[in-house]
Parts: sequence; structure tokens; C-alpha cells
Amino acid sequence: MSVTSIEVALAPPYRVHVGAGALERAAELVRGFSRCAVLADERVAPLHAHRLGALESAPRLALPAGEPAKTLDVAGQALDFLAATGLDRDSVVLTLGGGTTSDLGGLVASLYMRGIAVIHAPTTLLAQVDAAVGGKTAVNLGAGKNLAGTFHQPRAVLCDTEVLGTLDEAELRCGLGEVVKAAVLGAPGLLEQVERDAGRLLAGDGEALAAAVAACVRHKASVVASDERESGPRRSLNLGHTFAHAIERTAGYGTIPHGVAVAAGIALALEASRRLDLLEDADLPARVDGVLASLGLPDGVDELRRTSGQALPAADLVDAMHLDKKASRGAVALVLPRAVGRLELGVRAPERLLDWLMADRRRTAK
Amino acid sequence: MSVTSIEVALAPPYRVHVGAGALERAAELVRGFSRCAVLADERVAPLHAHRLGALESAPRLALPAGEPAKTLDVAGQALDFLAATGLDRDSVVLTLGGGTTSDLGGLVASLYMRGIAVIHAPTTLLAQVDAAVGGKTAVNLGAGKNLAGTFHQPRAVLCDTEVLGTLDEAELRCGLGEVVKAAVLGAPGLLEQVERDAGRLLAGDGEALAAAVAACVRHKASVVASDERESGPRRSLNLGHTFAHAIERTAGYGTIPHGVAVAAGIALALEASRRLDLLEDADLPARVDGVLASLGLPDGVDELRRTSGQALPAADLVDAMHLDKKASRGAVALVLPRAVGRLELGVRAPERLLDWLMADRRRTAK
Repeated sequence: MSVTSIEVALAPPYRVHVGAGALERAAELVRGFSRCAVLADERVAPLHAHRLGALESAPRLALPAGEPAKTLDVAGQALDFLAATGLDRDSVVLTLGGGTTSDLGGLVASLYMRGIAVIHAPTTLLAQVDAAVGGKTAVNLGAGKNLAGTFHQPRAVLCDTEVLGTLDEAELRCGLGEVVKAAVLGAPGLLEQVERDAGRLLAGDGEALAAAVAACVRHKASVVASDERESGPRRSLNLGHTFAHAIERTAGYGTIPHGVAVAAGIALALEASRRLDLLEDADLPARVDGVLASLGLPDGVDELRRTSGQALPAADLVDAMHLDKKASRGAVALVLPRAVGRLELGVRAPERLLDWLMADRRRTAK
Repeated sequence: MSVTSIEVALAPPYRVHVGAGALERAAELVRGFSRCAVLADERVAPLHAHRLGALESAPRLALPAGEPAKTLDVAGQALDFLAATGLDRDSVVLTLGGGTTSDLGGLVASLYMRGIAVIHAPTTLLAQVDAAVGGKTAVNLGAGKNLAGTFHQPRAVLCDTEVLGTLDEAELRCGLGEVVKAAVLGAPGLLEQVERDAGRLLAGDGEALAAAVAACVRHKASVVASDERESGPRRSLNLGHTFAHAIERTAGYGTIPHGVAVAAGIALALEASRRLDLLEDADLPARVDGVLASLGLPDGVDELRRTSGQALPAADLVDAMHLDKKASRGAVALVLPRAVGRLELGVRAPERLLDWLMADRRRTAK
């Protein structure tokens, strides 16, 4: 088993361990803390708790599976659990689950006694390549996704690619949406790898997945280290996300998987870039469309309407974009790609363009 | 009207404006932010909202008065309110109320979109001298007070001493408990002022209160600037608080006012210091007892039992101390005074001493 360790150079720095068997390091990593409590997705814990070694018997709270975990109510239950378990300031929380688990568990660790240590063990491709690295935590509000949260860096992240073997194609596809994002953002060689390995990635090939996860984590680690609090370059990681959050909100959280919405959002961002004359690599949209197609991911809103069966009215989508927390003083700010690795941040989108993109007349207008 | 501005030298630095009429600066301070929403104690807003000038008509949410505001439920309601009001990342929250309002409002501002600006306008003596300065935010959990929260520095604090004119003696007394703490911690000249001005302070004399508030804020600003996250010297500010939290918890939150419990806690800390041979200024306990008596504050648990009518069983109090978040690896860590301005931090208290202090056989044993 080979595990690669990637440093996130913040203060203090921490390591993301990527590869088959990475989870076995958990017990060793929590040594030195006074206590450890595990917050685990209720579906995931039975599948993977045995990989935790000595920590299999640590106090463990089952969190609701998926998006329903991301509420202040669940956060309150988890905080009560940490208190009942006797965690103190020298203790550590281990999260085991997908992005919703690390988002919620990270928030809970950041709040408990005004912040204790957390280690994430992401079990979905989406969480391994994105959510569990970088310290963003969140719950959803009625008004929108991730509207409440903190920045709280983990002490370590364990991306055990063996656990990805239990994911079905739909779950892998969701994570692959974020892989495509990292590829467009310029993770070295990743776009080429995805073009080459689409089939292997969708089939859950361990080696192909480990390579993609490592490439994504390396890229994200460098971005986060340069801008922990998202005041500058880190905003690039929101590529496709303003569109995606509007899609998820309009469909109802949990209806359309995040990574699937992100895939559509990336395609929309490329189209916006072209429409605003920002695009420098004219071949990029077709290349990304090709990759999305080979991964079974949508290349826009119409495709999403077809595959999801959701109406997703354009007017509702545009309204939802204005609620995004990246919106500032009323204007929707977008991250738009000029070429692989070259992004334009904070582009104020004209309303007409948003209307047009969300109606998705692109396909018919071409 | 004279207002003193005291800088808290953090990054970024901010100012605490102390004096009659300080609240009138609010409208000017929020200029430059995209929007402002006010979170106000439901009892306090009708009394003081007119002092906010142009902000009197800003969107305002009434929070439950006192300790009931400090729950995750109320935080969720306030977060929903900020979203409904259309606050974005460039907006500001103004809190108007006592320490429970700044604790809750500060937490809400720190969570909304992962942190937006907050300005505190504390309206109780307790909040002006302590709670609203220094960036600690919190809600209570079933297991204990302030067990969940964040560090989130305000952009400014407005300690308008005119608003203290609406407080009754019991409310002033509560704040005076924290004033005595600052005096023991070494705020220059404060112990002498309190000895001299006890009657004026209790009577709500504006000049005496403004001097005491300024002295406390100056002291707290210097401590917080040296240790924002409470890894070292800031722990001195917990003088009396491990005892106080145990008392409040055992009595039921809101039953015994925080500052009153802190007063008893200071007396207990001095007694513990004497018992552990840490005390260097042998006259200090009597001096502090004298000040507490002249302010009508308790000098121990027995006095508190008499005045509050609460049983406060010693065993329950000791149990509650072990739940304090300053406890680490099972041991209760105390802040003990050696002399005015000379503190011993992280003293592990022997169980027998805790039993003895909480039984309060001090008075009879002497």
C-alpha cells in the first residue's frame, strides 16, 4: 500500500495522506490528544469503522446521511455529544464520511470550547478531492447553502482511496465534477488524465482515482496555503459554484448532487467567459464538454433538466444566484476561466447574461 | 459629553469608545458597510434605540432578554434574519444589549457567510467592562455555559455610559463583580477607586462609572492584545470564573447573576490562593472582602446561599467545576491571585480544597 503525504503549508501546517490504507494512520494521529470522539455518517460508519483500528471503539455519534446533517440542529446535537463524552480543549474530533460530514464535523470542532482539533477521514471522492481539505466548515440555512460556517483547519486529512471502492458510479460521478474543476483550475496534468482515464475513473479504478485525488489535493493545498480566508486567489475554487448553488437551491438541497451541479456550473462559466470575451483558449469549452460527456456529467442546465427531471425555471435560478454569499452589494460575482489555470475572479455578471445562461439556449443558438 | 477612545491593538486594531453619548457614533461607524442589521435585547431596544440616530430605522431583530438568548436555536433565528435582510459579506451587525446579546450576536456575525463585521453597543455595566470587549462569543449547551463559541473581534465597541442610567442597583451590582475582578487583576488605580467610590458606583453615578469602565476596558484591551486566543496571559481574565460557572450551572442558568457569581468566585480564588500558600499580599483577601461587602456582593458560597435562597450543594458545585472548559485532562485549573496584578495561571486544584471551598467552612473555621 502506498500513501502519499501532501503538506498544506499553513500555520500550523498539516498533511493530507492520500492512498490505499491511509485510514489506518488514524489511531496513530490521535495519540497525544486527551480524547477522541468520532462523528460519522450513519451510512458510512458500518462500512469503514473497522479500518480505524484502535479507534473503532472510540465514542461515536452517527450523523444523518448527506445534506440533512448540515443544520444547526445537528450541530447542537453533536456539540452536546462532545460535552457528554467529556472532550476537553486537548481533545480531537475525527470525522468519517463525505463532505457533509466534514463540513458539519469541522464546524462542531471549531465551536466546541471555541475550537478544538479535528481530523477528517473523507469517504467520498468529492470530500477527498475538495471538501475535507482547506478548513471551510458550514451548515445550510433556509435561505441558502453553506450560509453559516467557520474557517477551521484540520490537523490532518486521511484520503483512503480504498474506501472509494464502496461507492457506486453516481457517487463517483459526483466527485468527478470537482475533479474536472481542479483540472480546469490547472492541477498539473489532470485534464489530460481525466480525458485519458474517464472510463477507469467512473469504474472506480483505485490507481486512477488515487492519482486524481493526489493531483486535486496538491492543487488545493497550494491555493489554500496562499489564501486561507478566501480574500484573493482562493476564490478561484468557487469556479462553477455560484451556478451550482443556485441549481441545488432551486431543485431543493439534496435533489441534485453537488458535484453534478458543479459540472453544469463549470460549463456555464466557460460559456459566460466566451460571451464576455474573456476566453483565451477557444478550444477549452469543447474539451471540457467532451470530458463531462465521457463522465456522464451535464454540460449545462438543459442537460440537467433532462437527466434530473427537475423543471429548474430560469428565473428561479437567477434569483437564487443573487442569494449566493459571493454576491456583494447586489451584483453576482463569477469566477470565469480564460484558459486552463488562468482564471478571472470577481467578474460582475450582467443580468441578461445570467438570464440567457440559465435558460440555456446555448445548445439551440449554436 | 466626553468620550474616551481606547485601542485594542490586534490586527486589525479597533477602538472602544467609552463615555456619555458614545452610542451616537454608531451611524458614522457603519458607514462604508453595504448594510447594517441590529440584533437587540428585546427589553433594551425600546429604551435606547433612539440613541442610534439614523440606525434607529435599520432592520432589527429582537432577541430574548438575558441568558435565554444564548442558544443555538436563537443563533439560527438570527442567522435566518440576516439572510432575509439581505446582508452580504460587506455588511455589519450591530448588537445592542448586555453580555448575552454581544455573546450571541458576535457568534452570529462570526458564522454568517463564515464571518462578517460586528460592532457591539453594550448596555449593561457587565458587558461594557468585560463581555463586549475581546472577541469571545458563545452560546450555552445543556452541559455548561459558553461551551460553544468562536473568537471574533468586533470592529468597534460603543460603551455609552449614559445608558447605564436605566440600570437598577442589582444590575449595576452584577457588573461591579467584574469591576472587582479587573481591580484584582491590576487595572491601575481601580481597586482604590472602588474602595473610595463604592457608594457612587452602586448609585449609578455617571462619572464614577465612566472612570471604572475606562479602567476596565484599558486593562482588558492590553491583556487581549497580548493573547487574543487565550493561550497564555488572557487566561488571567478567568479569575473567579471556574467557580462562577459552577455556581451558575448548579443554581440553573439565569438564577444567580453572572457578576454576582464572579464576586463569590474571586473571594474563593483568594481563599484557595491562601490555602495553597500562593498568596503574597496577605491583606488582599480582607481588602477584597471589604469591597465586596460595600458593593453588596457575596464573599463566598455561604453568603450566596443566604442571599439567593439556593441550596447550592457543595458536591454539585465541585462536579460542575469539572465540566468547566478550562478543565483539562480531568483536573480543574484555577487562576489564583498572589497580589494585585500578580496571578498564578493553571493551578491544579486538589479535590479536597475544592470540597472545602464549596462547603464554605471558611467563615466558621476562622
